[in-house]
Amino acid sequence: MLSHPVIDSGHVLSSVLTAMAHTPEARQKLREICRVAARVFYEKGYDGASMQDIAQAVGLTKAGLYHHVSSKDMLLFEIMNYGMDILEEEVLAKVKDIQDPREKLRRTILGHIDLVVRARDMEITVILHENRSLKGNLRKQINARKRAYIEFLEGLIARVQEQSGMAPKLSPHIAAFAVLGMINWLYQWYHLEGPVKEEEISTAYTDFFFRGLLGRP
Amino acid sequence: MLSHPVIDSGHVLSSVLTAMAHTPEARQKLREICRVAARVFYEKGYDGASMQDIAQAVGLTKAGLYHHVSSKDMLLFEIMNYGMDILEEEVLAKVKDIQDPREKLRRTILGHIDLVVRARDMEITVILHENRSLKGNLRKQINARKRAYIEFLEGLIARVQEQSGMAPKLSPHIAAFAVLGMINWLYQWYHLEGPVKEEEISTAYTDFFFRGLLGRP
Repeated sequence: MLSHPVIDSGHVLSSVLTAMAHTPEARQKLREICRVAARVFYEKGYDGASMQDIAQAVGLTKAGLYHHVSSKDMLLFEIMNYGMDILEEEVLAKVKDIQDPREKLRRTILGHIDLVVRARDMEITVILHENRSLKGNLRKQINARKRAYIEFLEGLIARVQEQSGMAPKLSPHIAAFAVLGMINWLYQWYHLEGPVKEEEISTAYTDFFFRGLLGRP
Repeated sequence: MLSHPVIDSGHVLSSVLTAMAHTPEARQKLREICRVAARVFYEKGYDGASMQDIAQAVGLTKAGLYHHVSSKDMLLFEIMNYGMDILEEEVLAKVKDIQDPREKLRRTILGHIDLVVRARDMEITVILHENRSLKGNLRKQINARKRAYIEFLEGLIARVQEQSGMAPKLSPHIAAFAVLGMINWLYQWYHLEGPVKEEEISTAYTDFFFRGLLGRP
């Protein structure tokens, strides 16, 4: 796949979050609930956290919480959708108009790194990837959104390989998962307050990736 | 750090698993319990699984299970130690006598990939990395074993860079986490039964890594 019109047009698989929250205020409130709930799930585990715990952390009654979200399963689903929404709004939307495939890929990688290392959304990142608690159809929907992003990366990688004029050194599929692994694993070890600055990671990772992909920096 | 005598001598931080299980039979039984328990935790979540569930899955009474392991926390700790034991026995022990740093690193990466993609130990891999359920001192002990492995990788990477005669393109620290991310992330997407064979992944990943590290394959 050489381009991804759905993602490129900015409408990657419409989010249930947006569909349910009709007004900007309701949408804002649901996002706030998602952020707080992500922290509670992160601390207590999905099974260990009750809707009562979450209502209390948000400063709502339990009935008030159920006004915004119909069940704990749906809340987890909304958190994951929120994670994918952030990726689209803060990374993909910003590279949408870049034509050069290599620059577009580089900026996508930088944006994705920034998303993962920013402490603010750390819990959401973790929950998005440790998603075995989500079942059946809800899980399928999240996986479809993740897959669309992976296909977007594969398409870009293929175009970068093509543009280089050299024979591809590895499949875009494997290269996409290699870079996703490098980036998503950051939450396991990287701390913004630590000795390695975000700029150093970003430069080292993108240079490393393009050397690995093309055999030159 | 240019070498890691502790790991190189094959005695990386002695495992509590070995310390507790005095006979080969007891050790074998504890490992079987760890494998079954890892599957139960994987399916039900750590909070969702009871010692009763685990005893039943292993085919023991609850009292029989407590004969082998003193608490659910200790069981989780034993599973993680088991995961690190496997890494040492099946990967690090096999590269111990290799002198050439690049070949030693290449074989370590191949061994680690093999460990992660083999379906048999998949649950243990997941539990080893999603280790927020482990608390306090137990968590510190597991993290120390992980850190020893990371330092071993960093040392090897530094020697490979040195051997290449070129100025290092990125810090061994960042390179170590990049390759760990690529490998450990495999459990999220790679299936042995899928279209991509293990050999293709292994070759693509090692070539990609060495190009990324050194700027040539």
